[in-house]
Amino acid sequence: MRLLTARLPRALAPVGAAARRLSRAYHAPVRDMRFQLYTVHDFEKHYASLGNEVPCDKDTMDMVIDASATLCESELAPLNMGADKEGCTWIDPHTIKTPKGFKEAYNLYKESGWQGLSYSEAWGGQGLPSSLALVQSEMIAAANWTFLMFPGLSKGAINTIIAHATDELQKKYLPPLVSGEFTGTMCLTEPQCGSDLGQVTTKAEPNPDGSYRISGTKIFISCGDHDLTENVIHCVLARLPGAPAGTKGISLFLVPKRKVGDDGVSGELNGVGVSRIEDKMGCHGSPTCQIEFEEAQGWLIGTENRGLNHMFTFINTSRLGTAVQGVAAAELAFQNSLWYTKERRSMRALSGTKDPDHVADPIIWHPSVRTMLLTQKAIAEGGRSMLYECVKLADTMTVMQQKGDEKGAHAIDERLGFLTPILKGFLTEAGKEAADLGIQVYGGHGYIKDNKAEQVYRDVRIAALWEGTTQIQALDLLGRKIMLQKLKPINEHCRGLYSQCTPHLLSSNSGLRKHAWSLLMHTAEWQMLTYRIAARAATNREWISSTSVDYLMFGGYVTLASHWLRMEVAAVDALSKGSKDEEDGFYKAKIQTSDFVFERLLPRTRAHKAGILAPVSSLMDMAVDDFSFDHAR
Amino acid sequence: MRLLTARLPRALAPVGAAARRLSRAYHAPVRDMRFQLYTVHDFEKHYASLGNEVPCDKDTMDMVIDASATLCESELAPLNMGADKEGCTWIDPHTIKTPKGFKEAYNLYKESGWQGLSYSEAWGGQGLPSSLALVQSEMIAAANWTFLMFPGLSKGAINTIIAHATDELQKKYLPPLVSGEFTGTMCLTEPQCGSDLGQVTTKAEPNPDGSYRISGTKIFISCGDHDLTENVIHCVLARLPGAPAGTKGISLFLVPKRKVGDDGVSGELNGVGVSRIEDKMGCHGSPTCQIEFEEAQGWLIGTENRGLNHMFTFINTSRLGTAVQGVAAAELAFQNSLWYTKERRSMRALSGTKDPDHVADPIIWHPSVRTMLLTQKAIAEGGRSMLYECVKLADTMTVMQQKGDEKGAHAIDERLGFLTPILKGFLTEAGKEAADLGIQVYGGHGYIKDNKAEQVYRDVRIAALWEGTTQIQALDLLGRKIMLQKLKPINEHCRGLYSQCTPHLLSSNSGLRKHAWSLLMHTAEWQMLTYRIAARAATNREWISSTSVDYLMFGGYVTLASHWLRMEVAAVDALSKGSKDEEDGFYKAKIQTSDFVFERLLPRTRAHKAGILAPVSSLMDMAVDDFSFDHAR
Repeated sequence: MRLLTARLPRALAPVGAAARRLSRAYHAPVRDMRFQLYTVHDFEKHYASLGNEVPCDKDTMDMVIDASATLCESELAPLNMGADKEGCTWIDPHTIKTPKGFKEAYNLYKESGWQGLSYSEAWGGQGLPSSLALVQSEMIAAANWTFLMFPGLSKGAINTIIAHATDELQKKYLPPLVSGEFTGTMCLTEPQCGSDLGQVTTKAEPNPDGSYRISGTKIFISCGDHDLTENVIHCVLARLPGAPAGTKGISLFLVPKRKVGDDGVSGELNGVGVSRIEDKMGCHGSPTCQIEFEEAQGWLIGTENRGLNHMFTFINTSRLGTAVQGVAAAELAFQNSLWYTKERRSMRALSGTKDPDHVADPIIWHPSVRTMLLTQKAIAEGGRSMLYECVKLADTMTVMQQKGDEKGAHAIDERLGFLTPILKGFLTEAGKEAADLGIQVYGGHGYIKDNKAEQVYRDVRIAALWEGTTQIQALDLLGRKIMLQKLKPINEHCRGLYSQCTPHLLSSNSGLRKHAWSLLMHTAEWQMLTYRIAARAATNREWISSTSVDYLMFGGYVTLASHWLRMEVAAVDALSKGSKDEEDGFYKAKIQTSDFVFERLLPRTRAHKAGILAPVSSLMDMAVDDFSFDHAR
Repeated sequence: MRLLTARLPRALAPVGAAARRLSRAYHAPVRDMRFQLYTVHDFEKHYASLGNEVPCDKDTMDMVIDASATLCESELAPLNMGADKEGCTWIDPHTIKTPKGFKEAYNLYKESGWQGLSYSEAWGGQGLPSSLALVQSEMIAAANWTFLMFPGLSKGAINTIIAHATDELQKKYLPPLVSGEFTGTMCLTEPQCGSDLGQVTTKAEPNPDGSYRISGTKIFISCGDHDLTENVIHCVLARLPGAPAGTKGISLFLVPKRKVGDDGVSGELNGVGVSRIEDKMGCHGSPTCQIEFEEAQGWLIGTENRGLNHMFTFINTSRLGTAVQGVAAAELAFQNSLWYTKERRSMRALSGTKDPDHVADPIIWHPSVRTMLLTQKAIAEGGRSMLYECVKLADTMTVMQQKGDEKGAHAIDERLGFLTPILKGFLTEAGKEAADLGIQVYGGHGYIKDNKAEQVYRDVRIAALWEGTTQIQALDLLGRKIMLQKLKPINEHCRGLYSQCTPHLLSSNSGLRKHAWSLLMHTAEWQMLTYRIAARAATNREWISSTSVDYLMFGGYVTLASHWLRMEVAAVDALSKGSKDEEDGFYKAKIQTSDFVFERLLPRTRAHKAGILAPVSSLMDMAVDDFSFDHAR
């Protein structure tokens, strides 16, 4: 922790909780994070058991949480609205201007050593568990999503280089990437293909020196170029001469914006230029680049024609990163809503006047307003718990890989492969809903930019699209993860949920009993529906894709509810032990929110069940030409 | 029709259907409109029975539809994206610049006599039924929503003046408003109040000449000033000296931007100035004004202290106008999606290769893409039918009022009062969903402005907020319309739905049978749920507001399904009579979409039913201070 504390500027010293609570500005939800980390998910024990490179105890966690909260509240959140208004500016193919304040904030982030938090000390990192970086990233995502994208996407490139690049490439590129001196990107999409990467046409031709000449156009490259760092390192999918058609003929290359000398100094430009940045609905703070590679010098990462496989090594990680975007949007929308519903007055509460000194009561007293607030809270806090479970698994997998326990690591990888599309698909859709409610709570004022609600709505909309749309996640879950593995992952998952509903819970006298029974029944139904789909899909594969989105959402609600039950159990437990006065409310709110989830969110599975059981014919019978007789035939 | 045809420029002559179908531009859905107007809702008979001022036959309807389609496709739709990008510009308090092309388009609209389409010839109108103007407005709304707002809001002012103003005010202001020479606004909202208009503080002080001095600040005044017309006539809510507090002390005033002489000429400014226009998420083509009234001269409309009642005379009309926004957004999103899903290729269809000449099949072959398309189609076409039913009722009510049949008119008004919040609440939420799917279908490309999908998403978002949020509609429906009238409106409505499920349908051999039974069961459930709410609300009024949004959405889906059943019956009937070849597909698609609605949309009522039955405690038990322990306490 030496590096971290040494580099942490005085300005980042944690401020008191009281000071945090006075404004509508973003406040890192540290109380809830600590409850989940220490009480619900027992990260202290988890970290102790990891045998990690650098030990991570409670003091370290607290320090990272507090310092991150301060960074986010003091430095990053204040830049968020300005970044949306100003956006990024294309100046020339090698100069993209980022919004005001981003460079200074990035320098602070870099100099504090945050980019290396969970990377090995061998590459200049702090050697802490990767889960801690994700805990931090939720705060940054809520404070300033587009700022997070620069270091966030860079981590995708770092992970890829660590896993697949030669020692030589690693030694040259990892230290400046891990320190944040460079950033990196992933260049996959081309104009004609996104999800279907088998259509990639960018070319790679061998040079005599073992490097390659890369030529082609890539689009939608987030943070593809910018003025935060002197160099940008691209991981690029391209085809070698004579490579097989489709997905099995794609290779992965490292292509720097500027050539890097053996001394580590970035020099001449390398045939990589940004031809335009996209004009988007949101996420204005990060440039979405169309990049032209014109005989740019690149180096092979990994094995020829295995590029897609290499790229997908970290697909779970990048998809969980997108799930973070959903959770962060829900938290931000919740905070912005909660502030307003306590301030804004309209009508009297139906249960009687609450505030006789004013002509009307705060709108938080209206039940339909509470429905919106509690939906946001349930998604934000429940989603957080879902994320924490996954990153614990990822930590364990990493340690197993390091110890050579291939079998154990593979088992966890399969479990993560099952959970990830649920989190990515469900939590981004849920994040969208929370952001939508964040506008709705404000009435007409929600439509006005200054009230901040609408930026969350625009920024989070991309989450259900990139890193694979919700529809792609659903196909991945049901087709690739469940059906191709003959239902093993869902059976395992349901076993876990059944065991969560212990005899103790099922016979308890509290609200826990009802909720445990509900979870048990919904789990059984989820499993049963999977069997029904499998049986039908045996004769018609369209049963899988026609039910997949409803299936994913069904699973998402059951999973969300299971996490609320876990939190509720922990809260009941804490109350039974006797807690401080103020804390009582915290635990009661957990129990009450769990009740909301079981009474009002989990029943949405009823609609998704109907979608799962509906016949394929109701989708596929219509002739393509018959969808419309008026237009676009 | 003399005026209309005389003023219709040659450029507006209808173009052939073939020419309309080649691009992704907006195409007025005239085939579906005709099916619904002539076959499903029998407007020919309806108009014949009205005994309207000017007879409206099929030729007239066809002429209005075709000319409107041409206006929308050729003139208005091409301005839509530019208006979003350019927006409106505040130059000074009396000069707001509208986007490029709006003035020319408005002049064309005005000179064609469209603004007076459904107003009496006495005021210079065409004297046609008001429903025809709504049929037209859906096209304009889809082609260019913010353009529609200028004449659309003006109609609110016109209706108010016709219903409540003195002869003198009517003679002075109606002819230029009906011709489109002036526009009008409704000035209700103030910074501290929107839904709760009892808090209005704008003052009206009497002048010796019988006029008043109006002073105060109004916000969110759509098209509150602009450069399309020389004058803007405001209908303003304000308080007289000594007026009772709350809603019973508010009066309504006519306040022109420029004083109008007895010669009808607009002259000096009148103390009405725009202090700013809002920076909004969408609807950039129309200025949302903050208006300062500084001792502006105004005239009382109607009776002192009855201003709110007068304003609410046309609340159904203005809310149906907002439901149109939802339907139009769904239609526009559907068209934009359909075009893309036939063009964009990704992967192979699961049911086998569709297009061997290409490396991948169009995405319309993927079941999850079809789910999105059919959801949009179901909302657009089903919503259209819901609107047509309501405007027929409004036509009949108007004629009854003219004939002095107070009782008949009142009965229809009550029926409209019941249907309107369902249409406004449900169809705007559904329109939002259709627009969301319009982005989703495009994947990452949906997030890019040039692909048009995201503008629909931003523009339609306001629909669920203004003219009363969805939550306000829900309270209006369940509290005011149903409970205060001791369930009479829902009982009547359910009777209508039961009678739609005829013995013939319930015993037919086609898919109609299943759908009719489903509608019957859902109707019974809707009615039963109403009784349960009523019983519970007797002891706790929060049962109404805590269930109201789920109740509205439940009713919305049942109502949507009932309209699809009507269309399906008409389609089955047409097929049984034998239709032209091309037409077969049209009717088959109606039947297939109805199947989609009953199999995949109507079951969403299962989730809403659970919300209706959930205990109030799961919303109201949480202490206000316990919602969060991290922020904004």
